[in-house]
Amino acid sequence: MILNNLKTITKVDKGLLLRHISGFAEQCQSAVDIAKACPNFSKPKKVQNIVILGMGASAIVGDLLKTLFINESPVPIIVNRNYDLPQFVNEKSLVFAVSYSGDTEETLTAFKEVLKRKSKVVAITSGGRLAFLANRQKVPIVKIPSGIPPRAAMGYLFFPMIVFLQKWNIIENQTLNILDTINAIQKLEEKYNSKKSTPGNRAKELAAKLHKKIPLIIGIENSTDVVALRWKCQLNENSKNLAFTQFYPELGHNEIEGWKGIGKFSKNLIALFLRRSDESEDSIHRIDVLKTFLKNHVSEIIDVKEQGSSGLTQIFSLCHLGDYVSFYLSVLNKVDPTPVS
Amino acid sequence: MILNNLKTITKVDKGLLLRHISGFAEQCQSAVDIAKACPNFSKPKKVQNIVILGMGASAIVGDLLKTLFINESPVPIIVNRNYDLPQFVNEKSLVFAVSYSGDTEETLTAFKEVLKRKSKVVAITSGGRLAFLANRQKVPIVKIPSGIPPRAAMGYLFFPMIVFLQKWNIIENQTLNILDTINAIQKLEEKYNSKKSTPGNRAKELAAKLHKKIPLIIGIENSTDVVALRWKCQLNENSKNLAFTQFYPELGHNEIEGWKGIGKFSKNLIALFLRRSDESEDSIHRIDVLKTFLKNHVSEIIDVKEQGSSGLTQIFSLCHLGDYVSFYLSVLNKVDPTPVS
Repeated sequence: MILNNLKTITKVDKGLLLRHISGFAEQCQSAVDIAKACPNFSKPKKVQNIVILGMGASAIVGDLLKTLFINESPVPIIVNRNYDLPQFVNEKSLVFAVSYSGDTEETLTAFKEVLKRKSKVVAITSGGRLAFLANRQKVPIVKIPSGIPPRAAMGYLFFPMIVFLQKWNIIENQTLNILDTINAIQKLEEKYNSKKSTPGNRAKELAAKLHKKIPLIIGIENSTDVVALRWKCQLNENSKNLAFTQFYPELGHNEIEGWKGIGKFSKNLIALFLRRSDESEDSIHRIDVLKTFLKNHVSEIIDVKEQGSSGLTQIFSLCHLGDYVSFYLSVLNKVDPTPVS
Repeated sequence: MILNNLKTITKVDKGLLLRHISGFAEQCQSAVDIAKACPNFSKPKKVQNIVILGMGASAIVGDLLKTLFINESPVPIIVNRNYDLPQFVNEKSLVFAVSYSGDTEETLTAFKEVLKRKSKVVAITSGGRLAFLANRQKVPIVKIPSGIPPRAAMGYLFFPMIVFLQKWNIIENQTLNILDTINAIQKLEEKYNSKKSTPGNRAKELAAKLHKKIPLIIGIENSTDVVALRWKCQLNENSKNLAFTQFYPELGHNEIEGWKGIGKFSKNLIALFLRRSDESEDSIHRIDVLKTFLKNHVSEIIDVKEQGSSGLTQIFSLCHLGDYVSFYLSVLNKVDPTPVS
């Protein structure tokens, strides 16, 4: 099997993406350390909403934050993927302006507007115009290392937000969850790394299944939905592979009807359910019913589940698997995963 | 052409869906009248967020509200498609519990939780457990007519929210926009109705183009994104046709890479851009660049645009066209559009 040939992997991976994926646990730890070492920015007062400005991988970290804390955050968390800014963003908003390069147009435009509205802002970036403007306006910056493809910098982009939110007592202390997450990713590294052969390497096995198919990544609303989006984007950008997302329980309400007319397309599609180990009995039963229906309409249905004692661990473990799958699929598709136009 | 044969249309449309689509302008007017005739519920005080509970078509009206008023609403608008409720929903939340049947499990579960948290609630329903519980708890109900497939009741589900929000001065008076919208839909009725033949009937022409394809409905973030979702659901439920959504500008940031690996699938896909007549020059230029790239990867690219003097008019006109297209596609797919399992 091609994925067990390390020379082939090295040959395809001209931009050296693999080293960022395999160093993900270290990246997460480093992100926490960088954020903790930032000066003690004053705590924002009377926060009424948390807004994350970002696009692509930088928006997904906002989605991750929202998903993980929707049930405990005292205020709404909103991800803004646009040039414009909702009217309710004002001096009582806490804003994270996230752009890896610092030059994302949409984020810069919205960032300038946020400054006018006197929101409390933290910029998370490796440099660019965002760092320049933030410096000039004395906006706190979390400066992360440059030279990485933005989508391989998810740890750097995500963890600083957690550090600030817990420092300001907006969310509970996450120290133990962060530790558990980093440990879990380190363990997964032993399972998914390129030297570990198929069969037995789940990431390589999944990539082989998705090869020459259109995967439909099915996430659970407010749980693994954002992971589904991350998988889709990684399959798009790293593997240059088309992929779509669907969300449960909404999927059961209407989208499912579309599958009935799938006809000749069905052999091209593969459904992949992103599961959590802490789902309710009720939810498990409903998903089983959905799968029974779907199995006549797609070439295969696959469950992907990760263990972990916290939501943070489970979500990040699933993301890490997706990163590896997308990398191995790029090898099978014979495209260097790093460059994007 | 089969779509010009009225007998064939009647034969497929056993559940008489067409009469609901063709009566959409009247439905919108009737919804406004019903909501205005409701008793004067006391104005909620210090609203900090607006939450819409709903699934399927009932959630989409929440998305529509959010999209149309995101730039003027003084507070965040959140659509909750789940059993659970975010922590920030409390006595300062204004909640619309929307369920056409009144028996949607997710909405009922979240509704009971909302009552515990003492939010200000309005129920929009034709009956069921939601009406029963709301009556027992003295929650205001907007009672809409029963006996319609929920997805054909979008006017009934949407307009009451507008009426209440303007009554309570949370949004500006929408009387003129509503009038303009209803007039526009009436005019479109003359263009899209079943007696109006192809060529010349845009709805029939589009249905013919989408036949035996997987349409990728591309919406613009915070603008036509929700229309894209509505089109997708209508194509799924009415036409039993698979469809996917993509969103611009996010599409340009990463998803586009996936198209490069599309290979043999490309002949099955058709990209449909939902446009507004009030887009900026800048946005038009960027979409053109995106289309130039996409045209090598799909069988066809189609622009769909509706005129109208307000966002409300443009969005509802586009939705109405989608309803007609999905209906005609059901005829081409030879499936009764009404029943869903």
